[in-house]
Amino acid sequence: MLEDRIIMAHGSGGRLSHQLIRDVFQQAFANEWLGQMNDATVLPKEPGQLAVTTDSFVISPIFFAGGDIGKLAVCGTVNDLAVSGAIPKYLTTGFIIEEGFPVAELLQIANSMAAAASAAGVCLVAGDTKVVERGGADKVFINTTGIGFIPTKRKLSPERIKPGDKIIISGTMGDHGIAIVSQREGLEFSSPVVSDCATLNQFIDSFILPGVKCMRDPTRGGLATTLNELAGQAGVAMVIEEELVPVSPAVKGACDMLGLDPLYLANEGKVIVIVNPRDEAAVLDRMHGHPLGKDARTIGEVLSDESGLVLTETVLGVRRILGMLEGEHLPRIC
Amino acid sequence: MLEDRIIMAHGSGGRLSHQLIRDVFQQAFANEWLGQMNDATVLPKEPGQLAVTTDSFVISPIFFAGGDIGKLAVCGTVNDLAVSGAIPKYLTTGFIIEEGFPVAELLQIANSMAAAASAAGVCLVAGDTKVVERGGADKVFINTTGIGFIPTKRKLSPERIKPGDKIIISGTMGDHGIAIVSQREGLEFSSPVVSDCATLNQFIDSFILPGVKCMRDPTRGGLATTLNELAGQAGVAMVIEEELVPVSPAVKGACDMLGLDPLYLANEGKVIVIVNPRDEAAVLDRMHGHPLGKDARTIGEVLSDESGLVLTETVLGVRRILGMLEGEHLPRIC
Repeated sequence: MLEDRIIMAHGSGGRLSHQLIRDVFQQAFANEWLGQMNDATVLPKEPGQLAVTTDSFVISPIFFAGGDIGKLAVCGTVNDLAVSGAIPKYLTTGFIIEEGFPVAELLQIANSMAAAASAAGVCLVAGDTKVVERGGADKVFINTTGIGFIPTKRKLSPERIKPGDKIIISGTMGDHGIAIVSQREGLEFSSPVVSDCATLNQFIDSFILPGVKCMRDPTRGGLATTLNELAGQAGVAMVIEEELVPVSPAVKGACDMLGLDPLYLANEGKVIVIVNPRDEAAVLDRMHGHPLGKDARTIGEVLSDESGLVLTETVLGVRRILGMLEGEHLPRIC
Repeated sequence: MLEDRIIMAHGSGGRLSHQLIRDVFQQAFANEWLGQMNDATVLPKEPGQLAVTTDSFVISPIFFAGGDIGKLAVCGTVNDLAVSGAIPKYLTTGFIIEEGFPVAELLQIANSMAAAASAAGVCLVAGDTKVVERGGADKVFINTTGIGFIPTKRKLSPERIKPGDKIIISGTMGDHGIAIVSQREGLEFSSPVVSDCATLNQFIDSFILPGVKCMRDPTRGGLATTLNELAGQAGVAMVIEEELVPVSPAVKGACDMLGLDPLYLANEGKVIVIVNPRDEAAVLDRMHGHPLGKDARTIGEVLSDESGLVLTETVLGVRRILGMLEGEHLPRIC
């Protein structure tokens, strides 16, 4: 029988650690790989190139409209693999838990990770649990590392980005950021904002034609920061029409009230696609055929200019520079 | 120019995050893989089976005699791969940093990780940085996930353990545990105890003959807990002669003073080897030829009994059960 709350001995490596692993993590994640219970898990390799990514999650609050820290951890890591063109296969997870944390909440988080992993077709194959004393951490932090394989025919890279390429965004911007901040601040809107937290790999599989040159998920720092990273790496300039960026009425209202810019807010279920204009219509068409892409649209294009700048253009044709996120207005958003 | 201390904006995903990554992590870890700077890192696959392991490190204090949290994170993860028979190749790392943490200490930790990784022949290929507000975490926590490849001829597994197999330990027990607890408690011994924190992969390569059936590193929970895990998984009983377990005089003295049992103390540079008696002498001989194995010795053997119990035998032939670690006497040891 497990205790009701996490105690230091759950992190000892001794009997209570084994019990916690068995009753919470193995129960939730049950699969043949995790069942090996060795210091490392031995896995089959798949064809294609190996891709790996890692993320730690410190979001507060840990339960939010549209998800929780466990679902977010799986989505964030699966999406980093998927936007790189990889087929996500395996996840590892490391938990850092504050003494006194309710075991029932830990189980809820583990079950939520398992559900998200199962929906995305990935397995949680290795894990680790540490416990720190009360006040040594805030509730629970989760690291997820993801391993996937890139089919040999897929070649995605910022270096493939060329002037004239189109910039597509798969849906509305800012939902995750506003869902978290409104819950944190106790704000209530007539239509509550729900995080867009979702795994993108199957959606991406549905539209990844040869003309897709590079993808990114606009998480921390939002669309503006992610485009700046891409433009800098590709050594090109980009221009977007701010009016074309889809933003839900509820997010727009919340941004107006809070003085936030949706272009800098985190998203957890959206993807930026840079595509050869030849495949633009076909990619959009396929995106619109998937629930995660119904609001997809082209918002701008790559310019013949090597400045690495991202510009916005108003309906009047005025261009201004859209920089990276400066400072931090929404800490612990993921 | 970097700030002197970590501020929340270093975790924003924006401009200061990029600066921190460039000036601390890329500077320390510089390699072609990390330089890709994409959402996932694309890596060459090596021959053999894929092995993966993950660990989070929450050790306190973060700097200790014989290492720091960065060196420990690399050693711990490299060793989990190595004892599984894998050739460690790639590490990912996720940092969770408390606001106000000195950037100079972060750089020291990153450099220490880089040095340990370089000595072990592994590359840090992907990373993530999160910042939490003051009091939201204790200084810095590090997750490392390791990827390696098991040469096809190597078959290590608890299932290969059979009655009559010998139990070898590579050196003295308890050094890491006592190094940490003595520093934490401000204890001074005539000869200070230094953590045994070391990467074991090259050492293991030097003695891994076909008769080596299974290995484990006795970290959290110590030798006693690790042997219990092995005996339980293999469905065998084991007996060790407690007097044969090497313990340094300084650790023995500290244990007497503090009421601690060296068999339950964490080690970070030792390996338990279960070997066919046919190869016992050859393995010991090779171990003695390496600085990390000079104190290696056989401490016991596997019994023809399926109880999963671990027993100790005194010089008088009295046997008692050596259980798993109960409770937690040394929290945050790794």
